Amino acid sequence: MTDSVRQALAGIVGETAVLTKPGDCWPYGYDNSRRHALPHAVVFATTHDQVKQIVQLCYDQRINLIARGKGTGTTGATVPDRGGIVLSLERMDRIIEIDPANRIARVEPGVTNLALQQALEPHGFFWPPDPTSAAVCTIGGNLAYNSAGPRAVKYNTPRENTLGLRAVIGTGEEIRTGVITTKGVVGYDLTRLLIGSEGTLAIITEAVLKLTPLPEAKATVQATYEDMHAAARAVSAIMAQPITPCALEFMDGAAIAMVRSYSDLDLPDNVGALLMIEVDGPAHGLTESTASVIQAARVEGIVAIKTAENAAEVEKLWLTRKALSPALRNIAPKKINEDVVVPVSRIPDLISGLEALSQTFDIQIVNFGHAGNGNIHVNLLTDPNDRDMMQRAHQCLEQTFDLVLKLGGTLSGEHGVGLEKRDFVDREIEPTTLHLMNAIRKQFDPHGILNPGKALPEGGDTA
Amino acid sequence: MTDSVRQALAGIVGETAVLTKPGDCWPYGYDNSRRHALPHAVVFATTHDQVKQIVQLCYDQRINLIARGKGTGTTGATVPDRGGIVLSLERMDRIIEIDPANRIARVEPGVTNLALQQALEPHGFFWPPDPTSAAVCTIGGNLAYNSAGPRAVKYNTPRENTLGLRAVIGTGEEIRTGVITTKGVVGYDLTRLLIGSEGTLAIITEAVLKLTPLPEAKATVQATYEDMHAAARAVSAIMAQPITPCALEFMDGAAIAMVRSYSDLDLPDNVGALLMIEVDGPAHGLTESTASVIQAARVEGIVAIKTAENAAEVEKLWLTRKALSPALRNIAPKKINEDVVVPVSRIPDLISGLEALSQTFDIQIVNFGHAGNGNIHVNLLTDPNDRDMMQRAHQCLEQTFDLVLKLGGTLSGEHGVGLEKRDFVDREIEPTTLHLMNAIRKQFDPHGILNPGKALPEGGDTA
Repeated sequence: MTDSVRQALAGIVGETAVLTKPGDCWPYGYDNSRRHALPHAVVFATTHDQVKQIVQLCYDQRINLIARGKGTGTTGATVPDRGGIVLSLERMDRIIEIDPANRIARVEPGVTNLALQQALEPHGFFWPPDPTSAAVCTIGGNLAYNSAGPRAVKYNTPRENTLGLRAVIGTGEEIRTGVITTKGVVGYDLTRLLIGSEGTLAIITEAVLKLTPLPEAKATVQATYEDMHAAARAVSAIMAQPITPCALEFMDGAAIAMVRSYSDLDLPDNVGALLMIEVDGPAHGLTESTASVIQAARVEGIVAIKTAENAAEVEKLWLTRKALSPALRNIAPKKINEDVVVPVSRIPDLISGLEALSQTFDIQIVNFGHAGNGNIHVNLLTDPNDRDMMQRAHQCLEQTFDLVLKLGGTLSGEHGVGLEKRDFVDREIEPTTLHLMNAIRKQFDPHGILNPGKALPEGGDTA
Repeated sequence: MTDSVRQALAGIVGETAVLTKPGDCWPYGYDNSRRHALPHAVVFATTHDQVKQIVQLCYDQRINLIARGKGTGTTGATVPDRGGIVLSLERMDRIIEIDPANRIARVEPGVTNLALQQALEPHGFFWPPDPTSAAVCTIGGNLAYNSAGPRAVKYNTPRENTLGLRAVIGTGEEIRTGVITTKGVVGYDLTRLLIGSEGTLAIITEAVLKLTPLPEAKATVQATYEDMHAAARAVSAIMAQPITPCALEFMDGAAIAMVRSYSDLDLPDNVGALLMIEVDGPAHGLTESTASVIQAARVEGIVAIKTAENAAEVEKLWLTRKALSPALRNIAPKKINEDVVVPVSRIPDLISGLEALSQTFDIQIVNFGHAGNGNIHVNLLTDPNDRDMMQRAHQCLEQTFDLVLKLGGTLSGEHGVGLEKRDFVDREIEPTTLHLMNAIRKQFDPHGILNPGKALPEGGDTA
């Protein structure tokens, strides 16, 4: 970081919005993957024009530029492992417009998911994506990874809930993608191309989000099963009937056992799998809709079904699921947390396969996640001080990925690729398609300054 | 068309699947825009591998290749105005797989929309896009134009209802985009990039479609208003409450007057606008959901609300709307039928503006369409033998487009660009963005053989 670059940055955003001291820059070098690399500088932009000028400077000087929200990503996608400038967008946090008549909101990338939901609620709307980190994570980050969450089973992901974007590409030029209406087919769809591209194509400075009316009422159901195969049959049955739940979460036997060992669980001993089901919609008819889902959930191997009658009971039913993450963190602070997806009907095959891999490699595996989307968080419990175990875990992980792909799945549902999965992408995507993605990347970012080395495998752009 | 190319084509698909006589090729030279150009040859492919070999041949020989479904498009996008080969995909009409447990269908591009819906119905599912031409048009065509229809107000467009594609790019190489699951964020989203690209980036040979459970029940309501402003207030009120109708169609006063002059309408004289509203969902609660929509529809200026009690009454309520197209065809066989979109709240401004333009240019304008999406079919009634009128109509059209863009809208909701709107695209999309689209196009189609001159304006690729 030369003095002249530092001065140029200060000229754009002001002295106080540029950090260059290692101690100041340090907290902007990590994300939730626990990877860390020290950036040469951190810059805080507050306007689209500042972002434009910063990218122009980096383009001219060929400096790496890594866009960052609040750093809650889990794949190292915002870790500046090749140095460069971290562009923090957390201060671009204005909700520019909420327009209920047109069911849209226009926001800057630094708005947190929670702040947006709170602003929308009085208008009777919400924005469907709801990652676990919603209280902290930014809309820009949600768009960068196409992060969804439990509600996606009914309400889909950011790609289906975003209408248009304003962004700055790697040359420092502004583009506008999409529309502000719910239909539009003029030009190519660059909106969805940018969503999920992890800051490698452009830096989003404004997004027009499609809003959904808040449902009037919600019912919460907990269903327990003898084993994961029974639970998986229930998931398929639920997804084959007309009422789509707004959450269809599961925990496998290992996950239940884990919670059981850490807290006093109100579950019979023979429970080997658990589903949390939520059904929302108009108050009228909700009882019948829920009954229809419950009927589908009553497959062979069911242990019990409990329906919450009030808010306290809702909380009680979610207790087991919510006790899981702290329990996992206690037992294995450095667990490998994967985010694979398989077709819903293949969940039993995935779980059986994981059981076998767990035995082969002597690695404890705990599974939970968004069953309605087939999106399974596979957790390999590891001890980073045990080198032999870590080696086995990585072999186990490789075979997990192969299993997922064999079942017709994908390596990431909502966490993205970043650094963590970059070297596995070519197992999922064929060379011609990958080559095309790299060729597209070059059109957006000819100097290769936007988050280099992330999202796509190395070397793909040499073809 | 040299003999050697003809022979090479026959070698790929067989003698009987290649047409070169002008009389045989003639019917494959038009679409519903009434434009026509004679192709040098028509080739019928039945497999992915045949498509691949055909594209490879055209790539090597630099021959234009225009993919075509059933020719129901309205923008000239499949008209081979620069010569070349029309690749008819109508014989690639296999439904490869219907998988209710995973809510997906895998189809070839030549399957008609209707054939797919009929095949899905016994499984309790449907694919939401429902263009008016559903009985004839192909899924490949629906994907090429991102064609939707009335149901899009609740169930969205092909982009939100397609998970993955297999396709052949302009080099003859195969790509696979997307996933077969409802979540996935590995690599860039090329699926949505191809959808709506009108055969200019790749030729889709297989699509994995996301299915939706058939609703249990549907209610049909007709609401009439004194004028379009009252109807537009109702549309905004309906879209601001939690129940999203599955159809929210409108006709303006001119459209009603037109039907009135051709048939015996059961509507009071003071009706100046009409809404057709459908609400679907579980049978339990449908009455209450419909009541909530009706309550929103009761704005100042309402004339009457009628709810159908049985199938015969449903048909009767739709009669006015369905009498419109034949009436229009009678009065103005060469009407200019546009497909603009504005934010729902700006519909009154659009209608007022169109009234003014109609007077200024002395052109009768009739409006109807998908009010819930702000997608208005603006019909300019013209006589092609009246040269002065046609000139006025084209000026009127240009100002209509400017008005739409001023209101934050887009020039096409579901008909696409093709040749008809190509030269207006740069009014909507800024130069940098357009340049990027052309640069992306070149990565898919380096020799510029895939449907050249369509979808994007001329000259954009010189930058």
